Amino acid sequence: MTTASDQTEPKRRGRRAGGEDTKAVLLDAAREVFIARGYEGATVRSIAAKAGVDAAMVNHWFGSKENLFAQAVLKLPFDPTVLVARLLDGPPEQTGDRIARNFTTIWDATGGGPFAAIVRSVTSHDGVANVLREFFLTSVFAKITEGLDVDRVELRASLCASQVIGMGMVRYVVKFEPLASADVDTVVAAVGPNLQRYLTGDIG
Amino acid sequence: MTTASDQTEPKRRGRRAGGEDTKAVLLDAAREVFIARGYEGATVRSIAAKAGVDAAMVNHWFGSKENLFAQAVLKLPFDPTVLVARLLDGPPEQTGDRIARNFTTIWDATGGGPFAAIVRSVTSHDGVANVLREFFLTSVFAKITEGLDVDRVELRASLCASQVIGMGMVRYVVKFEPLASADVDTVVAAVGPNLQRYLTGDIG
Repeated sequence: MTTASDQTEPKRRGRRAGGEDTKAVLLDAAREVFIARGYEGATVRSIAAKAGVDAAMVNHWFGSKENLFAQAVLKLPFDPTVLVARLLDGPPEQTGDRIARNFTTIWDATGGGPFAAIVRSVTSHDGVANVLREFFLTSVFAKITEGLDVDRVELRASLCASQVIGMGMVRYVVKFEPLASADVDTVVAAVGPNLQRYLTGDIG
Repeated sequence: MTTASDQTEPKRRGRRAGGEDTKAVLLDAAREVFIARGYEGATVRSIAAKAGVDAAMVNHWFGSKENLFAQAVLKLPFDPTVLVARLLDGPPEQTGDRIARNFTTIWDATGGGPFAAIVRSVTSHDGVANVLREFFLTSVFAKITEGLDVDRVELRASLCASQVIGMGMVRYVVKFEPLASADVDTVVAAVGPNLQRYLTGDIG
């Protein structure tokens, strides 16, 4: 049986030579620090120190703290700042369709694994729910509503999140048919206008 | 350390005297059998046999297999057949509002605990996702869409489920504000019309 102190060290031993090893060590360290200190409290410097590498390595491998968080905690294959820019690029009245199309396409490409992993983490670690809330809402959905010149940006952002998360739950976790196997165009036609109402419509 | 064979027996020992004990034994047995055999495959007779009680006890304590499932697996405090009847009772164009109001009120009353428990079960046991799909979709949401005289009843049902589950995730699991703390009227005004479009609107 391994003890707790055994588990922290061996991971790093002999993995410092290649660059991919540094990246893996940074991802492990980032996950621990984000969950322990929250998104704001986890500095790039503290993550690098935990990993035993120079802080410049974070920039080299991940570009930004947001992207490190997306990969380490959310296990997302994309940089959320890039995603938000893409979602805001186009006619404002089609933002709902773009959100539906982008999230479905990205998650479909990985078989929904990253989404299911987020949900599992959220339900098993309180810390993950905290950082997810802090990050997903403020760095993704609130950025979209702020970019649209509407009122009640936070309520609209949390409503959009509810539909996107619910779509992910039904498509990748509980797999309710026919939505689970519907093609992307069907999902966009069904879900896009509902997201659009949350973004720019009359929400009461 | 306990072995697998140790774990099946001790639970029942000395618990046969009171009625509440029979109920608890039935709930344990039902959970095991539903997950092992699926909703359709789990007969009332097989659950009663597993619990070592007469099949009439299921009817006595739970009224129906649906209700036993709701309490044993979904940990819901209500009978889904009663809920569906209530959701269909009223103007069809306000069904979305009724769904939003009923689910929010029921889950709020228990602090969202049952909802969070379902999500945790789904992500930790594959069997739960299977029975949840089979049951929640066919016994709740498909019953609602079938009661509304619309086309594409299954797609509409799975879309409604996506919004209700997503609302539950945001309100009770990840707790995105301000939706997590919004009063019921705010939730109904925001979410109800979106559910209504899934139920009776043009979904593409």
